[in-house]
Amino acid sequence: MIGNFTYCNPTKLYFGRDALEGLKAELPKYGKNVLLVYGGGSIKKNGVYEKVVAALKESGKEICEDGGVTPNPSYEKLCDGIARARAAKADLILAVGGGSVCDYAKAVSVSVHCGEDVWEKYFIRFEEPDCAIVPVGCVLTMVGTGSEMNGGSVITNHAQKLKIGHVFGENVFPKFSVLDPEFTFTVPKYQMISGIYDIMSHILEQYFSGTDDNTSDYIAEGLLRSLIHSAGIAAENPLDYEARSNIMWTATWALNTLIAKGKTTDWMVHMLGQAVAAHTDATHGMTLSAVSMPYYRFLLPYGTAKFARYAVNVWNVDPAGKTQTETAQEGLRRMEAWMKELGLVMNITELGATREMLDGIVKSTLIMDGGYKVLDEKDIRAILSESF
Amino acid sequence: MIGNFTYCNPTKLYFGRDALEGLKAELPKYGKNVLLVYGGGSIKKNGVYEKVVAALKESGKEICEDGGVTPNPSYEKLCDGIARARAAKADLILAVGGGSVCDYAKAVSVSVHCGEDVWEKYFIRFEEPDCAIVPVGCVLTMVGTGSEMNGGSVITNHAQKLKIGHVFGENVFPKFSVLDPEFTFTVPKYQMISGIYDIMSHILEQYFSGTDDNTSDYIAEGLLRSLIHSAGIAAENPLDYEARSNIMWTATWALNTLIAKGKTTDWMVHMLGQAVAAHTDATHGMTLSAVSMPYYRFLLPYGTAKFARYAVNVWNVDPAGKTQTETAQEGLRRMEAWMKELGLVMNITELGATREMLDGIVKSTLIMDGGYKVLDEKDIRAILSESF
Repeated sequence: MIGNFTYCNPTKLYFGRDALEGLKAELPKYGKNVLLVYGGGSIKKNGVYEKVVAALKESGKEICEDGGVTPNPSYEKLCDGIARARAAKADLILAVGGGSVCDYAKAVSVSVHCGEDVWEKYFIRFEEPDCAIVPVGCVLTMVGTGSEMNGGSVITNHAQKLKIGHVFGENVFPKFSVLDPEFTFTVPKYQMISGIYDIMSHILEQYFSGTDDNTSDYIAEGLLRSLIHSAGIAAENPLDYEARSNIMWTATWALNTLIAKGKTTDWMVHMLGQAVAAHTDATHGMTLSAVSMPYYRFLLPYGTAKFARYAVNVWNVDPAGKTQTETAQEGLRRMEAWMKELGLVMNITELGATREMLDGIVKSTLIMDGGYKVLDEKDIRAILSESF
Repeated sequence: MIGNFTYCNPTKLYFGRDALEGLKAELPKYGKNVLLVYGGGSIKKNGVYEKVVAALKESGKEICEDGGVTPNPSYEKLCDGIARARAAKADLILAVGGGSVCDYAKAVSVSVHCGEDVWEKYFIRFEEPDCAIVPVGCVLTMVGTGSEMNGGSVITNHAQKLKIGHVFGENVFPKFSVLDPEFTFTVPKYQMISGIYDIMSHILEQYFSGTDDNTSDYIAEGLLRSLIHSAGIAAENPLDYEARSNIMWTATWALNTLIAKGKTTDWMVHMLGQAVAAHTDATHGMTLSAVSMPYYRFLLPYGTAKFARYAVNVWNVDPAGKTQTETAQEGLRRMEAWMKELGLVMNITELGATREMLDGIVKSTLIMDGGYKVLDEKDIRAILSESF
């Protein structure tokens, strides 16, 4: 661990079967007007909406509804939410949903009192807010993005065919998040598995960077082993509380800045996946799984030692009698077999991408420079060509 | 992970070679009067005192000195510190030192405005403060206790022969901590190794509890593997920045509440070690190492499955052809060999304990109930008898 850094994560988490009691404890700290943000209405079917509204009313809050946030939340919807929050004079934005809803809530929170073009300011110039921020709280109903304990906010601009994430500083983190694993039980299996791979990708994209010895990588390996163990159980029985609770907790720690400390981090799987999503609107985690194997096989020669370590420490590959490359390759084979067994989408064709879209997807892919190889356009085209 | 819990850790950390810049960034947030707490004066020899005082003066602070905090800080010194803080009208308590100095600073911080008998209130009745708390910041110069990012405060009452720790809530956590690995380079090797075993013990005493599958245990295994790896390098070359920085970061995460989440936790090695220290004033980490092997061999039959997992996942024991007990025992043998190699004290005789003290040490040992076996007095006597 040779890099310098700061660490601060002020989000308070309430975890477990009685986590909603935490919401009741938090509400008195905020003013009367609450913007209640949610998605397509699944929370009205599984009873979460009712419980949250009851807690808000019990606490004497005025509720301004802001439902209909879609996966890959759009800039257009963001503008609508800003207007609602302003009209309601929101003192608190309560996000009830998955990562898209939390991401959207954070984008609204930094925009309500912002006088500038928020797309340009936050998602093109990546500036920090210099206006008042409306506090955000989350009640999580889908696991994967880690948005419940970080400053990340990913917004899609359909007009510009751009899906861009801004990782805001700690003052934009949710003030509190309610994590009840049972609130995620009604998520369809496709979405659950997609979320599991989102977690996996978060950990790997931080892990596959740097050549120094770093405690963060050992923590990452622990999280990966926990995730792989619990994912298998959850795929068999999505109602297994123990497995689902471990997955939920792993998701939070996979992307709340901890395992990136002292590291450069890669993030190219997310850049490739987000470019695919900008053209197909496909489910986030599946866009990551669909490009991962081509990307990692491309990357392996540039980071062979780390891929070999991954194979041994995470996939229990026995390195005896193997070259480092053979060990590394065997690790990726085991990962691929696990992904297929889990039911992940392994190509972008299945997500609606066509060869005709290739030029556009290549063009939409942002290039990051923290991994084992800084890609150029030719590399991106090669990886995406292998992903159909 | 089947337990319910809350998580909140608001301490801001500045880590690395330029970490003292963080102190300069923090100071303007606090009032003028700073109680500067430190130990026996080693910080005046290694230049840290000078740098900290320069930063305080640059920020226009009035400094009230409170040096001379000893290892195992005493209740008598605590009373002295409270009086100094009151006289200085301290707005900030800045602890520059190791865990004892940080622990002491926290004890002062909750006592300055407390009208009650603070020993009785905080260390016998384990109450939370209901008075104003003077904020604490830390500049760490010795690694091990994790006190830089938790609410722990251990105070020794020599008159009562009691060394007792209170783990305060998040409002008592340091507001910020400065972690520059180079500030720890001048710590004598005996103290460095003692700190390393303190970290090891923190992780193990949380790990050896519970029978459910829990992400916290996977994170603990990662921290243990990192610690074991870096400890070997640091013992060879104490000036290895990479190893010392990993040890420093591992220490923080070993005891900042994270890896206890969803777990009951054990803590009997600390209770035994603290009882030994109350009678000998021996170095903290060495009191833990001296009782660990007798304790863990006693405990193994009650938690065999976890000890076997520990052997495989942390000590790379091959379980093929072994019973679970044999695997578990081989893990402890490897741990013991590593401890001896590192130079840890392996018995309490070497720490100044005599057979005549046995009754008193048994009496001073607090019994915790979160591990694989709730000890009775006979068990404690048996374990301590094996520790001479």
